[in-house]
Amino acid sequence: MEELHCCAYNTQAPIEGSVKVYIPSEKDPRVRVPMRRIDLEPTSFRPGEEITNPPVYVYDTSGPFTDPEVSVDITEGLPRLREAWIAERNDTVELEELSSEYGRMRLADKGLDYLRFPHVHRKPRKAKPGCQVTQMSYAKRGIVTPEMEFVAVRENQNMEAMHHAYGRGAMPEPITGEFVRSEIAAGRAILPANINHPEMEPMIIGKRFLTKINANIGNSAITSTIHEEVEKSVWACRWGADTVMDLSTGDNIHETREWIIRNSPVPIGTVPLYQALEKVNGNVKALSWEVYRDTLIEQAEQGVDYFTIHAGVRKDYIPYTADRVTGIVSRGGAIMAKWCMLYKQENFLYTHFDEICDILADYDVGVSLGDGLRPGSIADANDKAQFSELETLGELASRAWAKGVQVMIEGPGHVPMDKVAINVELEEKVCHEAPFYTLGPLVTDVAPGYDHITSAIGGALIGWRGTAMLCYVTPKEHLGLPNRDDVKVGVITYKLTAHAVDLAKGHPSAMYRDNAMSKRRFEFGWEDQFHLALDPDTARRFHDETLPEASDKNKHYCSMCGQKFCSMRTSQQIREMANGEGE
Amino acid sequence: MEELHCCAYNTQAPIEGSVKVYIPSEKDPRVRVPMRRIDLEPTSFRPGEEITNPPVYVYDTSGPFTDPEVSVDITEGLPRLREAWIAERNDTVELEELSSEYGRMRLADKGLDYLRFPHVHRKPRKAKPGCQVTQMSYAKRGIVTPEMEFVAVRENQNMEAMHHAYGRGAMPEPITGEFVRSEIAAGRAILPANINHPEMEPMIIGKRFLTKINANIGNSAITSTIHEEVEKSVWACRWGADTVMDLSTGDNIHETREWIIRNSPVPIGTVPLYQALEKVNGNVKALSWEVYRDTLIEQAEQGVDYFTIHAGVRKDYIPYTADRVTGIVSRGGAIMAKWCMLYKQENFLYTHFDEICDILADYDVGVSLGDGLRPGSIADANDKAQFSELETLGELASRAWAKGVQVMIEGPGHVPMDKVAINVELEEKVCHEAPFYTLGPLVTDVAPGYDHITSAIGGALIGWRGTAMLCYVTPKEHLGLPNRDDVKVGVITYKLTAHAVDLAKGHPSAMYRDNAMSKRRFEFGWEDQFHLALDPDTARRFHDETLPEASDKNKHYCSMCGQKFCSMRTSQQIREMANGEGE
Repeated sequence: MEELHCCAYNTQAPIEGSVKVYIPSEKDPRVRVPMRRIDLEPTSFRPGEEITNPPVYVYDTSGPFTDPEVSVDITEGLPRLREAWIAERNDTVELEELSSEYGRMRLADKGLDYLRFPHVHRKPRKAKPGCQVTQMSYAKRGIVTPEMEFVAVRENQNMEAMHHAYGRGAMPEPITGEFVRSEIAAGRAILPANINHPEMEPMIIGKRFLTKINANIGNSAITSTIHEEVEKSVWACRWGADTVMDLSTGDNIHETREWIIRNSPVPIGTVPLYQALEKVNGNVKALSWEVYRDTLIEQAEQGVDYFTIHAGVRKDYIPYTADRVTGIVSRGGAIMAKWCMLYKQENFLYTHFDEICDILADYDVGVSLGDGLRPGSIADANDKAQFSELETLGELASRAWAKGVQVMIEGPGHVPMDKVAINVELEEKVCHEAPFYTLGPLVTDVAPGYDHITSAIGGALIGWRGTAMLCYVTPKEHLGLPNRDDVKVGVITYKLTAHAVDLAKGHPSAMYRDNAMSKRRFEFGWEDQFHLALDPDTARRFHDETLPEASDKNKHYCSMCGQKFCSMRTSQQIREMANGEGE
Repeated sequence: MEELHCCAYNTQAPIEGSVKVYIPSEKDPRVRVPMRRIDLEPTSFRPGEEITNPPVYVYDTSGPFTDPEVSVDITEGLPRLREAWIAERNDTVELEELSSEYGRMRLADKGLDYLRFPHVHRKPRKAKPGCQVTQMSYAKRGIVTPEMEFVAVRENQNMEAMHHAYGRGAMPEPITGEFVRSEIAAGRAILPANINHPEMEPMIIGKRFLTKINANIGNSAITSTIHEEVEKSVWACRWGADTVMDLSTGDNIHETREWIIRNSPVPIGTVPLYQALEKVNGNVKALSWEVYRDTLIEQAEQGVDYFTIHAGVRKDYIPYTADRVTGIVSRGGAIMAKWCMLYKQENFLYTHFDEICDILADYDVGVSLGDGLRPGSIADANDKAQFSELETLGELASRAWAKGVQVMIEGPGHVPMDKVAINVELEEKVCHEAPFYTLGPLVTDVAPGYDHITSAIGGALIGWRGTAMLCYVTPKEHLGLPNRDDVKVGVITYKLTAHAVDLAKGHPSAMYRDNAMSKRRFEFGWEDQFHLALDPDTARRFHDETLPEASDKNKHYCSMCGQKFCSMRTSQQIREMANGEGE
């Protein structure tokens, strides 16, 4: 596994200009929350003058990889932050062996040893009989878990400490663990936290919190290796992915997932149907509830935090897609529609949905109700197929909540700008404000190669309206499997989109970072601008292209306008003149 | 000039998958409008079956460079499409020499011969005394010029011929020359067309027409050459720039501009103040109305189609910027504010505005009223300085219209999403619906290196609300001068943004292209998808990365999902099953 080790190492340096810090909870001594502190240089316009610029604390999804005090060995996996919290609750048991038949079979296969995550001796946990172990069930019982307290501290981003500078408007009430609890209990937010993923740093998805982004990774039958996928996962978190979905459909899905989860500081989502189909060699006719059920258990015991389940693709809705320009474009949706057609039966994910929820509840796996009939083109947006399924997702959300299972609702896809808002309004209504999780949407289909941008426009619009998490789209969408560079571009594009949404929603920490950037831009604090950027490496590289010298980073202009035409430089002269100084 | 010649040549091949065609006007035999016709392969799912897909006609800004029948020699300049139309009107005269003192001085300087555009024997034109030669003045007199008829045919994009396929909804009334005339007469649209830029293919900017984009090019004191700037200009038009602004602030501005204009099929805009300041060696104190006036005439006789003029930066507004986070960020605005402060006098562009309009009217140069006090950061958006200036721009628009001068109004800049809409609403109100022309706006400042995207989000929002033209932003914004690759990324990003706006506004030709793309995507017509893309080269390159063989372009899947997991493939099997065929 040398190459795995060495390659991931590239991603383990601290992010340029940031210091990893841990902010302790005042309420719960067990909780200390990682953040990135960006220290700024003092403002200095005259020799000897130095005005301090307070540091900016930012949300940090990168996990222990960017902590120089922690040496991560990916063959060992990440430290198990939540292990004690879970054990202390005393409502789960460690199983002697895997419950999944397939899981046991893979484990017994010596031929897989060479690619297996080495530390598989860990015993899976499961709820004790009669115990409710989901964050939602705790929330409903009034319990603020350490996970909820962690989330509260995390969402505040140390705003109280920062508030004496730059802030616009009054300091709002800080988010508390109790507020987090109440949002989860109401179903308006989800804290995906499988008891078998103790490495995970808790986060929350809900419209009253910071807007989150998901990065899809995963191999396909055509390309990629375990090596590349673990690398992409760590890389995606480094740049800001709040959750990662492993959508592998190629070889060794089980083993790939183990590597990813053991090294993931963020929740991992999957679409279990993909692996179920893979187990029957891609033959939809051979798909069955039994294969699917075993897959759910297999993945739940590995630690997957949420499952996309296409239970809303009801048999009767399939004819509604007949006249579409692009038919059914969800992979899971197409598979289940084909199964329904083959057997002339209702979707087994729908008919077995309560059993599915019983399984999920035992591990606290969240359900992300898939939109299998989402539009795949501008022409098909907001049609009867899409909205019929949405109604069913609302029914399923209520059924999941009744079992204490946390729920989010997946949304489109491809929607022109004028049809975006109604998607959120309808989702909130028929799905009772369960968090909305959309893929873009792309606002036009004519720009393959740039669909990270066409979808960021739709993502900004739908996020502003209340979508809680945006699934990224990379430049490769519709053209091929994204590589590592594509993953980064996708993540940064969605990070800026989510940040713009938070600004528009009036989040004070978003405003704070923008204002710090603007102040240091006006003051020609080039290094600080790079450090405050979502992607310091690219910002610096672009500046270096025309002004590569270290001394250029002290200059009061850049190559865009040069010295005489720099408006900020002139503007500062104007201020000096107004103060009776200068020319 | 060998290198100029050779380098621009790279940009002269036809765009992949497109055929240059000329659609004649039925009303005016002088008018034939270039378009790109994208021929599609027939749909074929079974051997022997072939269903024709009609071609898609798209708006073409690339000029003669992409016509294989025309061999453009950039040392000769482009064919002079409008020369006869202008001469026939018999309301202009050819001058024996340049009216600008500076222009004559540069011409007489033998030391500049080596970098001068060779064919400078062309005589400049000017209105005959007492004649009104602007498109607005013709429009007000009820005259539909060939330029207006050209625009009408162009905006229709051959929709009538295409309408029998894909179209959603009823075919709207085609745009007529008379409609174009009425919009120009009302001041709601502008057709920038200097009588000294006969090479230009007429286009229109107005909210009832297709959304347009502008690309800024130009050297700075730090970097770039004439060679590179001509190359960027041709390159920007190739990918869809509807107008180009030459914002050069470095050496040889006059000669650079001549090369650009003589080879530009789109209107060219400038900020004359930059060159005026350059003439006085960057010393704001030495700036005067006389230098500025001579610069206006110099550039008008070269053929600049519109000038950005910062006449709204009134002396009394400057103190409103004192508490801003980023002061004054418009280069022109900062220069004029400094001049006002130095002389404790009103902005000479404001006091001389009527004389300016008299000069512009003689050549039909449009005025783009610059927003010198636009916000340079999220913190400064929609403040008193910005909106005070906007009121003045409304006053100036009325004064320009009184002289028959065409007007547009420049807008921000940096605005969070929740503050975008009011910008358009206010502009339409106080500026009497003069076309709005905005720079983005960026919806956050934390993503340097990705400001083409932060600004595309704002551009989409503001365009949808009625902004007529969007000024692009490249990835280099705030970091350095864009190179050729940055220009392309900026143009394509804004092209997709403008297209998304046209879709949201319900433009049938926008919908048509999207639907054709979606249909061919569902049918695995890979070649057609590349050809219909805004950037065929990048789309193909991305596909080639994982499936490089020619035979891969016939495959009914791609590397993203592979064969078994391709939803579109499965979806087609479902249709066959529904029809009693297939599995």
